Amino acid sequence: MSKFLCMILLVLMIADIFGCELKDKPKSPARNDDPLPSWNEGSVKRRIIAFVREVTTSGSAGFVPVADRIATFDNDGTLWSEQPVYFQLFFALDQVKAMSGKHPEWKTTQPFKAVLENNMDDLVEQGEKGLLELVAATHAGSTKEKFDSTVTAWISSAKHPGKQKLYKELVFQPMLELIKYLQVNEFKVFIVSGGGIDFIRSWAEEVYGIPREQIVGSYIKSEFHYNSGAPAIMKLPELDFYDDREGKPLAIDKFIGRKPVFAAGNSDGDLQMLYWAASNKLKNFELYIHHTDPDREWAYDRKSPVGALDKGIDEAKRLGWAIADMKNDWRIVFPFESESGSLVDLSQ
Amino acid sequence: MSKFLCMILLVLMIADIFGCELKDKPKSPARNDDPLPSWNEGSVKRRIIAFVREVTTSGSAGFVPVADRIATFDNDGTLWSEQPVYFQLFFALDQVKAMSGKHPEWKTTQPFKAVLENNMDDLVEQGEKGLLELVAATHAGSTKEKFDSTVTAWISSAKHPGKQKLYKELVFQPMLELIKYLQVNEFKVFIVSGGGIDFIRSWAEEVYGIPREQIVGSYIKSEFHYNSGAPAIMKLPELDFYDDREGKPLAIDKFIGRKPVFAAGNSDGDLQMLYWAASNKLKNFELYIHHTDPDREWAYDRKSPVGALDKGIDEAKRLGWAIADMKNDWRIVFPFESESGSLVDLSQ
Repeated sequence: MSKFLCMILLVLMIADIFGCELKDKPKSPARNDDPLPSWNEGSVKRRIIAFVREVTTSGSAGFVPVADRIATFDNDGTLWSEQPVYFQLFFALDQVKAMSGKHPEWKTTQPFKAVLENNMDDLVEQGEKGLLELVAATHAGSTKEKFDSTVTAWISSAKHPGKQKLYKELVFQPMLELIKYLQVNEFKVFIVSGGGIDFIRSWAEEVYGIPREQIVGSYIKSEFHYNSGAPAIMKLPELDFYDDREGKPLAIDKFIGRKPVFAAGNSDGDLQMLYWAASNKLKNFELYIHHTDPDREWAYDRKSPVGALDKGIDEAKRLGWAIADMKNDWRIVFPFESESGSLVDLSQ
Repeated sequence: MSKFLCMILLVLMIADIFGCELKDKPKSPARNDDPLPSWNEGSVKRRIIAFVREVTTSGSAGFVPVADRIATFDNDGTLWSEQPVYFQLFFALDQVKAMSGKHPEWKTTQPFKAVLENNMDDLVEQGEKGLLELVAATHAGSTKEKFDSTVTAWISSAKHPGKQKLYKELVFQPMLELIKYLQVNEFKVFIVSGGGIDFIRSWAEEVYGIPREQIVGSYIKSEFHYNSGAPAIMKLPELDFYDDREGKPLAIDKFIGRKPVFAAGNSDGDLQMLYWAASNKLKNFELYIHHTDPDREWAYDRKSPVGALDKGIDEAKRLGWAIADMKNDWRIVFPFESESGSLVDLSQ
């Protein structure tokens, strides 16, 4: 066993004795050599590291107290892919098809008819909100627990039609590293997504290392039933809150109650969240993901079946936000490209 | 310097080197002698300590993983007093009076008329929901920041008419110790209150040591304005969500996404939250605060201007929940009674 390895083991043993959780201790970039190994050297990587170093260095002009280190990330297109459509739509389609046997009426009623006839165009036209209403409709009357287990089963088995990978494998390795880097530096990292809050909570903790209570999303109405001492929360067939555009800062204010100092997004739906973070009196950082890699991922920035992106990229440029050019800034896009070929171990 | 002191210093130095935060390390009750010094010895104190010991002892039958250690506390009547009416009502009244100069129409329109005429009965009749609508009305069109600073100024100066103490001094010392005890044992402690989420967030972090993002309450509708690059969230004169009764488990599911293993309340409005925690498959604890001390605090448990309590106490008894009898279980009620006479130092 090498001296180095011995040293590591010794430190870990002593750390364990004193109950240290080194992962919770801020590490200066100097100490953990490269916190963002899947990012190519460049201005975006430099700016991220300079920002984290400054806000975590007490005495520095931009120092941010731990309690205010709130980071908010969009999910679709920011933490995982969103092409050819939001992955949650694939989930909804699979659910409708699986349940159609019990619902003969779906053959003749929209949006179910479009699903059963694989009429993607009709569906995509309805946008994310229509998708959420579809999810609401298919899961009306089921308990949260049942919904959770349905999603968990799906995310562990369903594969992306084009990439032939599990959807949860189509997450961005550089963003996993960024989340980890912020957490190590005592940022509280939240997801603020237009997607369904229960859908994301069912798998994001395992995949991103972000706890359920730090995941904010769109939600449908639900009802509490005392159920003679075996209480249950039942989903209703109606969207309650759509967490997109203006909804994002409003949800951040409602769920978190603090203005973020770090926000990341990739579309017009994230703009208001980025404006909100940019208006923080404390030093802040806005990151815009630009999909420029048609080979490893997808290339799009003006029009997309998943919604408008036209204004986002222009505003990011106008306001001098960091723009991650996927093709040039990311050495690795998906974890399965990495040396180990597996998702980064968030327990590390 | 004694050997013992030397030892302590040595441990702290080494701990510091390795970045330990010993306060974040679970302390077995054995190690920190009495975690609940303001609680009299008795079955409730014993049950709390036994519960915390079991769920934090790995290998024990009732062990609960850290991620699932969610505790939810009601606020009014559970963490601070609520007599003769919810303290937030006093805030609302002070606001209406302060603003009445600019609103001559209030002299003739309810509920403002009742406020300006000090007609408490009319006001109390409207219940907490009416109070929230009053707050909504008085703060319509103001920004969240302005509302925060108004509350902060009020809570630092306004005094309870009967007790002649700041409202924030009328918090329960035994509950401050309980919150601290749970946090030290790696519970994530939330407030889930029928009171206004922004009202509580403005002072609870300082008073209870619970971060803003772990405070859930009723909220009024609000609007995001881009405001040419200086975005603002404005309050609207309409209640959006009333976090009481069925609303509490629904809010827990929405904001936290996990079922609590510890829940504390004192009224019928908390019952559904307690039922929800009691239905947790993991080992759980339900605490019901019984106001039995007319001298140090107040005595009431069937009827109260602040709402129904009739069913709560009966259900607590029927279901064998721990019932804290304020007169007999609490050696000290308010921090100013304690030896130091000051609020417990939550930074300890």
